Formats: sequence, C-alpha cells, structure tokens
Amino acid sequence: MSASQKFGRILFGGDYNPEQWPKEVWYQDMQLLTKADINEATINVFSWAQLQPSEERYDFSTLDQIIELLTENHFEIVLATSTAALPAWMAERYPDVTRTDFEGRHHRFGGRHNACPNSPTFRYYSQKLAAKLSERYGHLRNIVCWHISNEYGGQCYCDNCAAAFRVWLKRQYKTLDAVNAAWNTHFWGHTFYDWSEIFPPNDLGDAIGYDNSTLAGLSIDYRRFMSDSILQNYKDERQAIRRFDPETPITTNLMGTFKDLDYFKWAKEMDLVSWDNYPAYNTPSSFTAMTHDLMRGLKNGDPFMLMEQTPSQQNWQPYNSLKRPGQMRAMSYQAMAHGADTIQFFQLRQSKGATEKFHGAVISHADTDQTRVFHETAALGHELAQLGGDILGARTQAKVALIFDWENYWALEYASGPNIRLKYVDQIQQYYAAFYRQNIAVDLIPTDLSAAALAKYDLVVAPVLYMVKPGVAENLTTYVKNGGHFLTTFMSGLVDRNDNVFIGGYPGPLRELLGVWVEEFDALPPEKHGQVIFTDQSTYECELICDIMHLEGAQALAHYGAGEFYAETPVVTNHQVGQGRAYYVGTQLAAAGIDHLVGQLIDQFDWEHFTTPANVEITCRQQADARYYFVINNGPAQETLAWPYQGTDLLNQQTVAPGEITLPSYGVKLVKVAK
Amino acid sequence: MSASQKFGRILFGGDYNPEQWPKEVWYQDMQLLTKADINEATINVFSWAQLQPSEERYDFSTLDQIIELLTENHFEIVLATSTAALPAWMAERYPDVTRTDFEGRHHRFGGRHNACPNSPTFRYYSQKLAAKLSERYGHLRNIVCWHISNEYGGQCYCDNCAAAFRVWLKRQYKTLDAVNAAWNTHFWGHTFYDWSEIFPPNDLGDAIGYDNSTLAGLSIDYRRFMSDSILQNYKDERQAIRRFDPETPITTNLMGTFKDLDYFKWAKEMDLVSWDNYPAYNTPSSFTAMTHDLMRGLKNGDPFMLMEQTPSQQNWQPYNSLKRPGQMRAMSYQAMAHGADTIQFFQLRQSKGATEKFHGAVISHADTDQTRVFHETAALGHELAQLGGDILGARTQAKVALIFDWENYWALEYASGPNIRLKYVDQIQQYYAAFYRQNIAVDLIPTDLSAAALAKYDLVVAPVLYMVKPGVAENLTTYVKNGGHFLTTFMSGLVDRNDNVFIGGYPGPLRELLGVWVEEFDALPPEKHGQVIFTDQSTYECELICDIMHLEGAQALAHYGAGEFYAETPVVTNHQVGQGRAYYVGTQLAAAGIDHLVGQLIDQFDWEHFTTPANVEITCRQQADARYYFVINNGPAQETLAWPYQGTDLLNQQTVAPGEITLPSYGVKLVKVAK
Amino acid sequence: MSASQKFGRILFGGDYNPEQWPKEVWYQDMQLLTKADINEATINVFSWAQLQPSEERYDFSTLDQIIELLTENHFEIVLATSTAALPAWMAERYPDVTRTDFEGRHHRFGGRHNACPNSPTFRYYSQKLAAKLSERYGHLRNIVCWHISNEYGGQCYCDNCAAAFRVWLKRQYKTLDAVNAAWNTHFWGHTFYDWSEIFPPNDLGDAIGYDNSTLAGLSIDYRRFMSDSILQNYKDERQAIRRFDPETPITTNLMGTFKDLDYFKWAKEMDLVSWDNYPAYNTPSSFTAMTHDLMRGLKNGDPFMLMEQTPSQQNWQPYNSLKRPGQMRAMSYQAMAHGADTIQFFQLRQSKGATEKFHGAVISHADTDQTRVFHETAALGHELAQLGGDILGARTQAKVALIFDWENYWALEYASGPNIRLKYVDQIQQYYAAFYRQNIAVDLIPTDLSAAALAKYDLVVAPVLYMVKPGVAENLTTYVKNGGHFLTTFMSGLVDRNDNVFIGGYPGPLRELLGVWVEEFDALPPEKHGQVIFTDQSTYECELICDIMHLEGAQALAHYGAGEFYAETPVVTNHQVGQGRAYYVGTQLAAAGIDHLVGQLIDQFDWEHFTTPANVEITCRQQADARYYFVINNGPAQETLAWPYQGTDLLNQQTVAPGEITLPSYGVKLVKVAK
Repeated sequence: MSASQKFGRILFGGDYNPEQWPKEVWYQDMQLLTKADINEATINVFSWAQLQPSEERYDFSTLDQIIELLTENHFEIVLATSTAALPAWMAERYPDVTRTDFEGRHHRFGGRHNACPNSPTFRYYSQKLAAKLSERYGHLRNIVCWHISNEYGGQCYCDNCAAAFRVWLKRQYKTLDAVNAAWNTHFWGHTFYDWSEIFPPNDLGDAIGYDNSTLAGLSIDYRRFMSDSILQNYKDERQAIRRFDPETPITTNLMGTFKDLDYFKWAKEMDLVSWDNYPAYNTPSSFTAMTHDLMRGLKNGDPFMLMEQTPSQQNWQPYNSLKRPGQMRAMSYQAMAHGADTIQFFQLRQSKGATEKFHGAVISHADTDQTRVFHETAALGHELAQLGGDILGARTQAKVALIFDWENYWALEYASGPNIRLKYVDQIQQYYAAFYRQNIAVDLIPTDLSAAALAKYDLVVAPVLYMVKPGVAENLTTYVKNGGHFLTTFMSGLVDRNDNVFIGGYPGPLRELLGVWVEEFDALPPEKHGQVIFTDQSTYECELICDIMHLEGAQALAHYGAGEFYAETPVVTNHQVGQGRAYYVGTQLAAAGIDHLVGQLIDQFDWEHFTTPANVEITCRQQADARYYFVINNGPAQETLAWPYQGTDLLNQQTVAPGEITLPSYGVKLVKVAK
Repeated sequence: MSASQKFGRILFGGDYNPEQWPKEVWYQDMQLLTKADINEATINVFSWAQLQPSEERYDFSTLDQIIELLTENHFEIVLATSTAALPAWMAERYPDVTRTDFEGRHHRFGGRHNACPNSPTFRYYSQKLAAKLSERYGHLRNIVCWHISNEYGGQCYCDNCAAAFRVWLKRQYKTLDAVNAAWNTHFWGHTFYDWSEIFPPNDLGDAIGYDNSTLAGLSIDYRRFMSDSILQNYKDERQAIRRFDPETPITTNLMGTFKDLDYFKWAKEMDLVSWDNYPAYNTPSSFTAMTHDLMRGLKNGDPFMLMEQTPSQQNWQPYNSLKRPGQMRAMSYQAMAHGADTIQFFQLRQSKGATEKFHGAVISHADTDQTRVFHETAALGHELAQLGGDILGARTQAKVALIFDWENYWALEYASGPNIRLKYVDQIQQYYAAFYRQNIAVDLIPTDLSAAALAKYDLVVAPVLYMVKPGVAENLTTYVKNGGHFLTTFMSGLVDRNDNVFIGGYPGPLRELLGVWVEEFDALPPEKHGQVIFTDQSTYECELICDIMHLEGAQALAHYGAGEFYAETPVVTNHQVGQGRAYYVGTQLAAAGIDHLVGQLIDQFDWEHFTTPANVEITCRQQADARYYFVINNGPAQETLAWPYQGTDLLNQQTVAPGEITLPSYGVKLVKVAK
Repeated sequence: MSASQKFGRILFGGDYNPEQWPKEVWYQDMQLLTKADINEATINVFSWAQLQPSEERYDFSTLDQIIELLTENHFEIVLATSTAALPAWMAERYPDVTRTDFEGRHHRFGGRHNACPNSPTFRYYSQKLAAKLSERYGHLRNIVCWHISNEYGGQCYCDNCAAAFRVWLKRQYKTLDAVNAAWNTHFWGHTFYDWSEIFPPNDLGDAIGYDNSTLAGLSIDYRRFMSDSILQNYKDERQAIRRFDPETPITTNLMGTFKDLDYFKWAKEMDLVSWDNYPAYNTPSSFTAMTHDLMRGLKNGDPFMLMEQTPSQQNWQPYNSLKRPGQMRAMSYQAMAHGADTIQFFQLRQSKGATEKFHGAVISHADTDQTRVFHETAALGHELAQLGGDILGARTQAKVALIFDWENYWALEYASGPNIRLKYVDQIQQYYAAFYRQNIAVDLIPTDLSAAALAKYDLVVAPVLYMVKPGVAENLTTYVKNGGHFLTTFMSGLVDRNDNVFIGGYPGPLRELLGVWVEEFDALPPEKHGQVIFTDQSTYECELICDIMHLEGAQALAHYGAGEFYAETPVVTNHQVGQGRAYYVGTQLAAAGIDHLVGQLIDQFDWEHFTTPANVEITCRQQADARYYFVINNGPAQETLAWPYQGTDLLNQQTVAPGEITLPSYGVKLVKVAK
C-alpha cells in the first residue's frame, strides 16, 4: 500500500523546514498552503543537530510544535529521520563518522550525506534517533510515511570501510583464492595472500581515476559493497522504526539513474519507492519519462511517490531556467502518467540562506501568494483535489520491457576500452526514446527476472548487456523459445558477474540465442561515422562501435555500407529460436535507424501506440474498469494530434470524442476511457 | 603625500635585483640606467634568505652595498621588506610558517607568498626584519617609500588559522547563536554548539570547490578573515617600520581586481596605493583603464604608484606577446592619465635563471643598451624628465561613480544559482566600458559612501549590487532624493551582509527606491538570447539572466521582445524619487544596449565627453589652474579625431588648436589647457 | 649482438601469460602459436606475487612448467624479471616500497610500476629475485634475452627519495653554494643554507603543476635524479643476473619519446634496445617512423627489438580502433624498415579479466585460429620464416641527423614563457616529417656527439636547441667549419645545463656559428599567424613564436611579410662558416615552408630520396652486399609510385624492375637491390 492510497486522494505537498523562521511565519504558512490545497508536508529532513544538540541530550520540542501545527491544520506528514547530515559535534568528537574520500583524505565536518556508512558511531546514533522518533511519533495517524535519511549516495574509503569490505568479501567468496580468481589478480601480479592486503580502490590504490581501475572486479565489488553498506544504514533505521511503528510505510528518496546505489536491490527493502525529479533545462521529456518508468519498475509497477521537484527553478544546475507557465503542471501529470500517486515539491517555503537559497519554492522569498508560481501550484492543488482518488493504484500495462541493471552499469563504465564515449544510461535511453516517440508503454525491469515473469512481455530489450549474470542467458533463452522477442546490442554477453570475459566467442552465453558470433569490434572516433543499410535499402548512420560478426543461424536485417573493410557484413540480425526471435544490433545506430527497427517491430505486434507531435506524449494507467490516458504537451507551442477514443477529460469533466484534439502550450488532458 | 611628489618629478624606475650578479655588472647597470633617465629603484623584494641566513644571524652587507651604490648614483629607493618569500631554513625549522592548502595539505618549502598569515613564527620574524631594516635605513633621505612584502594574497587553512578564525568570529558575532543565524546553519543541520566545531571551509570541510560552499556565509566570512589576517601581517610590519621611521610613505603593491583582498579596507592602512599592471595580449584598454581608476579610487582619488609593468613582455601568461613599438609608452601615459605619479617596471635587469627569467626588463639578457626596449625606455625617461612635476598630484574630476565592493564580489560568486556564467568583474567592466567609450571620467568607489560623499556625482552605477550592507540602501535613497541618479541591475538587493536573503520581494531594501518588484529571474543558457526593446523601438539582445518584474512606481524604458512568456513585460526602468531618479536594468544587455542607455543619460547631463575612434581615449587630470588631457592611441593604426580645445602638447611643447588631430600608432598627446 | 641475430631468423612472438589459465589451454596455445610460426615468447612479466608469495618463500614451479613447455615446443624465450609490479604483501609489510605522488600522498597497494626507486626494501628484493631467476634459468640455451622490469617510468617524492636526492646533489655539485648558483635560488629568496632544506619539487614544494616550477633547475635536476634512480634499479637487477649468466643480452622495454627517462643515458647500460609501439588511431606514420629511428639511434644504429605492438586493437586509448586488414603487417615491416630485427606482440593470448582484457591478442577471447587477426598473424609468421635472417643486423645509412635530447625536452617544457603551445616533441617531429615526406633517411642522435662523430652527416638538425650543454656549441662549430651543415630554430642557445640564460645576446654560444643576434621573440596566440617570404617570393604562414633578429654575418633566406612591426626583417638565415653552413629558422614555419627549406637542402646534396604518395614510405637498410628497400603503403587506398631500381621483392620472390609500381591497401614490398 502506498502512503497516498491510504487516504483516497493524491498527496500534494513537499519539503517543509520552518525551523529557520519565527512562529508568526508558521501560521502564515499554514494559511497559504491550505489555500493551495496542499495536504501534506515532509518534515525533519536535516534536523539532527537540532534534535540532538549534544551527545547526551535530545530535544524534540520544536519538532513537537511543527507536528502539532501541521496536525491541527489537517496536513498529512512524511516524517524524515534527519540522519542525512551529521551534527557538527559528532564529527568533532568521533572522527570515524566522517568519510575518507577518493583522494584518500579524511574529511572534517562539512556538507551533507557525509557519514561513513561503516562508522560504528554513526550506526549507533542514527538507529537511536530513528527509534526515538518512532517511539514519539509513530502512533500519530497523520504520519503517512517514514522517510529515512535523504538522497543516499557517495562512497567512503576509510579504514573502517576497508575492514568491513574484507568481511563482505569473505562472505561473498569464502576464500582468497576465489577472490584472486574473481578479479583475475594474476594479471599484473596482484595476487593477494592475506585478506589484510586488500584495500578500497581509490586514488591511493587500484583505481585509475573515478572510472577506471587496475582490477575492475575489485572496483565493481567495492561499489556493490558500498551500495550494501549504505543500504544497511537504511535497514538499521528501518528496524529501529519498526520497534515502535509496525505499519506506516517506509521509504527513502531515490534519484532516477543515479549510479551509486543498486536501486533494484534497495527497492526490495522499501515499502514504497519515492524519488526526486530534477531535469536540467534541456533534459528531453523522454529521459524524464524513462526515469519515472525506472522508478515504477523498481517495485514491479507499484505506484511511487514523486518526493521532490521544483515548482519553478533549481539553483545547483549551471543554468537554472524557470519552468514555463504550465510546465510544472505538465511535469506533475507526466509523473502521474508514469506511476506517481503523490506529487511533492522541494520546497514549500524558500530558504533564506545557505547553498540552496535560490531553489524555487511554493512560497518564495517574496513571501506572498501573489506570484505566478503560487498561483500555478494552487491551481494544480485544486485540480488534484477535484480529481479525488480514482486513479490511485492504477497500473501500467506494458508489452515492452527494457532491462536496466546497476551492476552492468558499473561494469560497463569501468571497462577500459573500446570507446570512452560509451555510456550506459545513454545506451538505455536511446532505445527507450524510440518507443517513447511511438507512445508505446515500456517497463524498466531488472536483469534477473524469470522466464515466467518475462512472459507477459512481447519484447525484452537489453542494450549493452555487457555483464551476463548466472541464469540470465537461460531465462532469456527460455523466454524466447516460448515465443518472446529479445533485442540486444553490441557490447553484450561479454563478461560474467566478476567482469571476467566469457571465453569462446562473443556474445558469450547469448551467442546461441542470437545466432551470431562477433569476432571483433571496431571503435570509431567522434569524427567518424559508418553506414547501415537495411534490407529495404533504407540507410542510416552509425557510430561509436561497429561489431564485425558472422551469422550462425541468424538472418541479416541490415549490413554495413561501403567504406570500411567490413562493408557488406551483417550488422542487424534476427534469429528465430523456438516460438520467438532474438535480435542483435551490432552498432550504435542513429535515432532514425532505431526508429526504423522499432517500426518493424510494431508491425509484428498489436501494441497500443499513438502517432503524436514530437512534444506530445500519451501514456496510460489502468484500473480494473477504466483506462486513464494522460495526453501531455511537454512543449511551449500549441500542438494538434489525432485521438481515437471516446472518453471524459477528468480535468475539465468534458467529453472527448475521437478526432483531432488540440493542446495549448504545456497543456494536459486526462481522459478516462471505460473498458 | 605620494612618494613621487616629494621630489617634484615623476618617479621612473623599477625592481632591481643585483644580488645574482657580480659587482662589475652593478657598475654597468648604473651607467645604463642613468642613461635612460631612470631615477628610482625598488630593491630588496625577495632577499629574506640573504638578510637572515639563519635564525640567529642577520647580514645586511650586500644590501648596504646596493643602497650605497644607488645613493652614489643619485637614485631614489623604494625599499621592500623582503617578507614575501620565506627563507628555506624557517620552513624547515618551524613548519607553522608554511600554508595548508585548499585541498588540506600542509606545504613544505616552495614558491613565494607562502607564509601562513597566522603563523606566530612568521609574525615574529617578519616584524623583526622590518624593524631592523627601518632602524638601519629609515633615516636615509633617498628612501622615498617602504614597500612591505609583495603582491599579498592567497589563503591558508591550517589549524592556527582555524583557531584565529574562531577568535575573529567571536569578535564579530559574540555568540554562537549569532553565528548560526548569520550562516543560517539550520539548513542541512549544521548548527554549531561549540566554537571548536567550526573549521575553515576547504575541500575537507564545507567548501564545494573553490567557488561554492554549503554555507556561503561561512565562506564569505573566511575570506573576510583571511583578508584581515594578511592585512594584519602588513600592519605588523608597518608598526615595526614606524618605530624608527615616522615619515616615509608605506605601501604594498596591489593587483587591480584581484579577488583575495578587500583593497578598500587595505587602502585605509596604506600611505599611498601602488599596483602592478599586467594585462594579457588581448586585455581591452578599457579594462586596464578601469583597474587604474579602481586603484585611484581606493584612496579617494589620490595619485598612485604604478609599481610594476613590463617594458616588453611577460613570461607567465599563456601567450606572452611583445608590447609593440610605442605601446609601453602609451600604457605608461595611460597609467598617468588615470592617476599614476610614478612609472615603474618589473624589472630593471632581466634575471638569468628561475621561473621569471623570460620576463622582460629594461636591460635584457643581451646586456646592452642597443635594444628596442632600452631605446624606448630611455626615450620615455627623457620625456618624463623634461615634463618635470607640474602634473604631480593632479586629480580626476568625475561626475559618474561606479561601485566596486569585494564582499559583494565574494558573495555573488559563492551564490549557487542562477547562472554559472555570472561573474562580478565582468558585470562591473561592461558598464565601465560604456562610459569609457564616450571618454567620460568615472570614479570607482566603495559601497559605503555617505549620501553627502555621493552628492558630488551626477550618477552612481552599481551593477549586481547583490549584497546590500547596513546603511547602503538608506544612503543611496537619500542621495537620489537629493537629486542624484542611481542605476543598478538584476541580481541586486538580494542578500544582507551575511548572505541571507531579504524576505518580502526583490530587490529587497532597494525595492522602494527603484519602484519595481522582481518576482522571478530566469537563467538563460549560453545558446539562448532574449530581446530588449526600448521605447524608441531600438532593439538589443540580452542574455544570462532575465528578471520578470512589476512596476511599483517606476516607468518602463524598455520591455522584452517576443518569444518568451515574459514578452512585453518591463526590463529597463526609471523611477523618479525626490529630485533624482533610480534606474534598473533587469537583464544582461548587449554592449550596444548599454551604450544606448548611457547615451540617454549623457543627454541629461553636461558631462565632458568626447567622440573618438575605438582605440583612442581622452582622459583628464586637473590642477587648480589647468587641465591636463591625455589623448592616447591604444592601437596599432594611425587614428584621427576631433579636438575641441586650445592648448599645449607638453610632450613636444607645440600648440594644439581645436580641430582634427592625428595620432600615429600608439601615439600620445598630453595637452595642457588653462582653466 | 641482438637477441635475434643469435638464431639467424627474425624473432616473432610476444608476451605470454598462461598462469591465469588451466593447463589444457597451454597445450592448445602451443599448437596455435606454432601454427602461426611464432618462435618466441616473452614470459614472467608480472609474476612477482606468484614467484614470491611471501617474504620467506619463493615458488618457481609454475614458471618451471611454462619454460619447460615452451622449450619442448621449440620457442625462444625472453625472460622478464617480474619486478614491474610489487607483490601486495610487500606493500603491506614495507610501506617504503610504494611511492609518494606528485600531490604528496603516499600510496597503498595498487597499479603497477609502483615501486619507489629508492626504497631499500624494493632494491633488496628486486635484486634477489633477479639473481634467483638467473641462477635457475640463465643457463638455458633458449633464453635469448633478459627483460628487466617493464616500461620503467614515473616519479616518487617520498622522504627516501628526498634523502637520496640530496646525496645525488652533493655528488653533482659538491657545495650548497654551487647548488644555489646552479638554480639561481637567489631569485625569490630561495637560498639554501643546509642540504636538509631541499625537497623534491612536487605540489607541496616548488613545482607549479607538473610542467612548471619556481626553480626550473631544481625540477630538471629532479628529473635527472629520478631517471638515474630508476636506471639504478635496472642496473641492480642487471648485476644480479650477471652473477649467474654472463652472456645473454639484457634489455628493458622503452617507449619512444616517453618523457620520464633519459633513454640515451639508459641505452648505454642496455645490451640491446627494445620498445613498445602503440600509436593511436590517428598517429601519423611519420611519427611512428621517427620513434623507430629514435630507438635505433639510442645505440648508434644497432637493430632493436619491437617488444610490443598490438595485433589488432588497444584498450587504453580513448578510441581503440582496429588495425585494418594488412595494417599490422605494414606496421611490422615499418618497424623492420627502421631497424627492428624482432617483431613481437602484446600479447599472444588475450587476458580474461582486469584492465587490459580488451587489448588485442594473437589468440583472442574467441579462443580459435579462425579469426582475421590470427590469419594475418600466421601469414606474417610464414612470410618472416621464409625471409630467414639475411636482413638481420642490416643498418641504416643516413646523411641527415636530428638531435633529440631529454634534458632539453625537460628544460624547454619547464620554461615559463613565451608560449604554452610550444612542445618539444612537436618541434622535433615537424622537421622529421619534412624529411620523411621526401623519403630521406634520418638518424636521431644525442646532443653530445663529437665533431668527428657528426662528420658522417651532411646535415645536423637541432630544432629548439634550448639548452646548450658544455662542448656542444664547440662540437657543432668544428663540424660546420669542416664542411658540415647545421640547422636550428628559435628558442635555441638560450640556457646552460642548469637552465641559466647565456648573457650577452641570443642564441648565446650559437650566435657566432649562426651569424645572427636574436634581440627579442614575440609569442603569437593561437588565432594569430605571420607570413614568411623566401627570396624566391614563395610565402608561407608562421605561428607560435617570431624571433626578431639582426644579421651578424648570415644571409637572409626569408623575411617576415607585412603586418607586424618586424615586417621585412630576416627570419630564415644561412651562414657560411669555414667549409660549411649554419641555418637558422626564427619561427614556427608551416609544414609547406619547412618542405620548401628542405627542398633547398636536397638541391645541395646527393641524398637518396624518393617522391611518393603521402601514405607511402620507402626506407632502406643495408648489408655489406645489398640494400633492402621497404616500400610500404601505410594507408587504406591503393597507391602507385615511381620506382628506380632493379631488384627482387623478397616477400614474393618476384623481380621488381624500374618503373611504376602499385601497392594495394597497406601493401608492402621488400626489394633487395644488389650493391
């Protein structure tokens, strides 16, 4: 159960941090926020120093007052545990709580997200605080969600972490021989003969900058270990909360494709997923859509909370452009379209000082409701209040799945060669975008689904499936044999979970499924492009990497054009296996080329899809009895499109008939169509 | 009294460092320098290691000889105290004397400007050396100026500095509560409960790179503290000198818009301002002019020393182009035009080794007077000797003032958001340049002048007056009410002296004066431009930041062109307040747009101004009975211009009549016009 | 005697590292490698951790088996000593073995080439291992070469190195006064009064980034000291080997123009030169040719080993393009053409894990001989086997010499000013390339050859001969007087071996020889170009630096074009001295301008040269009775060229008659022409 479902309406609120203001401001806030139909506040995100002013003393008096005020004013509360920033006294008294950085420097006090995850002091006191909070507030009916810490991430390379890493390794590998084999330490004579010889891979050890390493296996394992260590911090606090509050959902806010943490692993420990959406001024809407879908995918399609977005502008981007009139609304509905049941802002009131003081807020420094941003927020609040809760819990029904895997992400980007421009998220995004352009629903899924779980999809796409972990090839093969379709690309099937290459010909365990053998891959510098010619003679550019391959049962769908020694050799292939097919794309196709390929796939399936102008997306969530179509203009110009169904626009209660419909700049229709 | 005035002639000399040469070279130097009419030498700048070869021993024998030689040869002397570079033995014996850097690393021996300003050892021995020098040489008649240390700057982050910072904070804030409020530490839970929890904001603490910070208030205060700490070093030595020499002017060489030190605060402690002018090959002449004016402004218009310039080329720029024939002369007169009574070079003789060996000198490695550079220097020497001292002490009479404020500089550039391309000096420079293009005299003034002091100006310009310190808004308002004109821009009136935002609507304390309310500011990425249309329909590009504002009494002088949601809204405004007016420019106007605005202002006032070709400037200094016009061609081509007055060109004693005059490449006229 | 000559055939093999594989793979490797006519394996490069698993224990059992296997299969062996990567246990037990980096951080275990050269522990155990290897295997007949460590390089800045540096300085300079004079420490007051005050020049000391320094003399000496220290490591192991093996040639693999080590000094200690050739995808063939010639020049023309090249692609470049079909063969012959008697690969079998796993190999991850790369390797193997050993030991007969000097390289790039774009290798390369374009043989020589040794050359070219060490000017002058021709450029004759400027006019000790005085040098920013007009009115662009000079006996061959104040002044000159001539080029001429100049020189001499298409080179090696011409198409297109001689193509045993010949893409002819 998501926090919002509990209440039959969409949660609409955000981060609220009144401690820096006098009381009279609080009362004014309550009036303004109520006026905007805001019904929820996330509080206590960075208050540890206030709650525990010294090692010996806790002081909940201010928090008591804030909760009381919110409760009296009928707000729901997302209660954070405040452990994302250490109190200064703790850093001074217990140096183990701060981190040692990639350069090997132990930090003094500063910043946030600054706790060493393996610090005994941090672990003790963070649990203690979470327990105290739960004991004191966990019984309150309007605490709708616990929010542990905030935007977890980062790494530590201190001696405590080194020691914990060795314990983690022993648990994973049992013996040093197994470690040496896993990391192929023999290469460059790195064989370890004692656990104590193993160090975290930072600038003083085996790392080569942030994104390369003498022993990629070590670096990947350190990322696994760090993700696990920080997850343990989360679990520590969760357990502490559960001592006094057995029920209220617990979350922490994630950050889309953020590299540091294996969110699929994390999501298993979270009652609901929440996340912070901060696109840059030029982030394509397809990227934002993908991250929403990824967040929804973390818990197998469960609705999520949009924990943070700015109502107007950010402050920490290079260029913090304003959201245009209507754009905040459109982006809020985009979040809902892709699975959000909660719309929150960072922040309800703009801070008066420190680093984020120019980050937008519902109540700005102008301290009034007479602002564009307040008006737009209030209008959205009213709209959502009228909408009620019918849509809560509605689900996406996708026939296409896209695999996203953090371990693969790490491994691919630690790989030395063949091309430094190869980036994991870019690779995933370009395939996502091709489906998005056709308004085809996509689920983002982990790499370890069973063939049975995959069976509901017509197509599973796994770009750069570089690391193939145990069982994955088998699952995919069974899935295809049973009628599924699978598509993967260059740089797939190369290494096992320890980053050791599958010997015997690329793409390793996927070779039989794909029916191709990739003998070599050429790397293209940025100034160089190749040509891909499909069997229908349509021709597209390619770049980055060009596989040179042999057909072993697959059919060529496209071959390279003239100009290189591998001209005329196959580059896009299709392999019939059992009832299904396996596709392979041996190069970085230009977007139009991927569109062409996706077009061929659409022709095979009865996927619901829509042709829309570039800035318009149509996305569907479904309840048992109805489909909810979000028709969103993500751009600043008016757009016209063809619409096929009879339905009702829930935002204005007007009937929408099949035919041409027009959306103003950043306009939205939410059309309910009966099943 | 400036050092040069004492002698009724312009000081013409430079840095002289004969210790690396055998004696026969010294005698040759005297002949060559005398031949060039050089009448001054700055000595002893980096000789500490020689003067104090060990902790126990001082040795002045070489310096005695140098001073004797210069005295015999009738040179004036600027005597440096040599404390800008530590002796190696001191760094080895007393590690507290070296700095801890931004990355947190304590330095061993190396470089220069390398002393921790809060090192007890450094403070003790630097004072002792200054006292010894003063005792020994302070009575000499030809010591015309003391030069303490050299090009002060930099930061230290050591534990001594941390301790001194806490003392400084206690003096400023009295209580920790006041510190917490000033820095808004509650944000991100940084509340301090003990002074010992506060650390310098470097990479191990609260800084986020050099130009961002978790707590901007802390970072700004650390800059204040560092500027003060280093100023204390200067004052230490000044006091030591004054024990034995009560009279001779004392200075240290500044560096224009150098960010580290609050030069307005420093200048109060200096008997005269001196500075080093090192433009790059592509520095516009308007920038150099502005820095001269800033240096003149530091002591309210007093003439300054040009302590260093190269006679030919520099060595530490990326591209060390030669000054073209005549260019050194033109730049020397430009310095005089803007207030210099002294023209010095770094350096009189070129060094034979170490990092600056390729820096130009009057006597080059060729070791002869048969060089272009020597010839040009000697020619200038003769010219200055003939000029005598009539011009000494002459002052600039400006009707336009431009506010430059180091605290504002620091605060603006620590601000996170809205646009990383926003740079303080750029903002000041573009307004300066618009007046410079019209040959209108401008004073650079501090931010804290009283309304009475401002009253002599027709117009006060304060671009990006981000930080408005106590009293500033009141002074400006009184100034305007009494008939003054004030112009400011976007990003003004935002924060108080602790970098906390004025709540209630931008531009905060300037809102009433300006008659506008800025509701939002949009940040434009580099590829994006807007349009500004003045009421006369003239149209200019704008970029960087676009304010969205409401008129509250002001009149619109220009509005935004089409293309954005804030099209047609006001962007340049004019507010009648009492007898004066307050202008607001809500965006980064293209240069032509600022020219348009300045043109409108010129039409209102009877400012002396001249229309000249782009490379020609006309600048005036005034004595009681005469005006001295410097007509300078800063470019490599011949230029012709209109000239309005009857006068005498002091450089050739010819009459200059009104009419067209022609200047050769880098040509100069110095026209005396009787009052 | 080079290792390959011993056997009457070209060594053809590479790095072999079977320890990471099970035994069955070894047997398969033997079959595959034999099939490719590979006759040599370099082994044991990074096996220290395996050979000495703990301080007390050595274990040669695996190495025994590898050697036995190779011997049984008739492979020659290049036996490495394995000391290029420390065992982890050693780093943990003896922290002195790891390095302190430029930033001042002492490293823990990680990477390779990671030993502090002045670590007592490292020196003790590296010698011990080398001795044990020699004792155990030195007697084996098929050990054809010892390979000490691997790709030596890097720097250490630890306290052990500081102490050793002081000892090194005492040996060089005897007194501190001499050090102070050498480094001109008086500048900026750096005078040292005790040896203990001297520190390595890293970020905590006198360095200003990697490529600048307060005291260039110190930084240059530290590079000398580091090169010497690491050379001592090499000599330590060499001595240990020689205790048991008095004969087998000893080498270590160098890296072309690699900056860290003074390879001319190193080569004196090596029995034969070997090196690793890793061009990037866009490295011009003239650069590779130059590095081969440099490696050949290190031992005065002796043939060298190509120790490493990739058969297909690299992994650590930004863009690791494949070698095109035929390109590996063409590049192998290019190596031979310029002096290699050995062609080796890194590597024989591709690694399964760790950082270089995507580096190409003869046996790829596909684990089969059915690959393009294997086929090409085998084809080359067969070709080389047929070729036999006739060419072994053949020598290059060049009439043009090009000076390359590491101390000059270091000094020039530490120079602060005049232009940051000035790079030593670029300067050498552009002159090399001009001769290469004419297919004129060039020897790369050190700077200290006697006039007698120089006498065999018609022309000696020394671009940017910035540092002129004792005797060099005298040797060059005698050489020219006796009829030689000498060409040098701007930035020559400036400093002595300690980086102190020759006083009295540039180019210092070369001024009389060149007959010019360079009064000034202008630095051009990247956007600016000048013009050079030769006496025949042909005109070329110039850039970077423009000397302004006076003729003192030389004749002008070219002068500057219009546009600058030094228009019409001489820029290329020619000075008749005795029987010879000395040329000076006072600017960075565009390539076409250098070609023009080289064309004028060709007209004076009877050098053998060939006109070929841009991608084709013709290179000659000579035996007593025959000349061997390598005609190589380094490009992907077919090329046609004129060929003057009657001979036999040894690669297909066909007669080659004078006339037009055609080479396919990457085609090669090896034409034997009888003398």
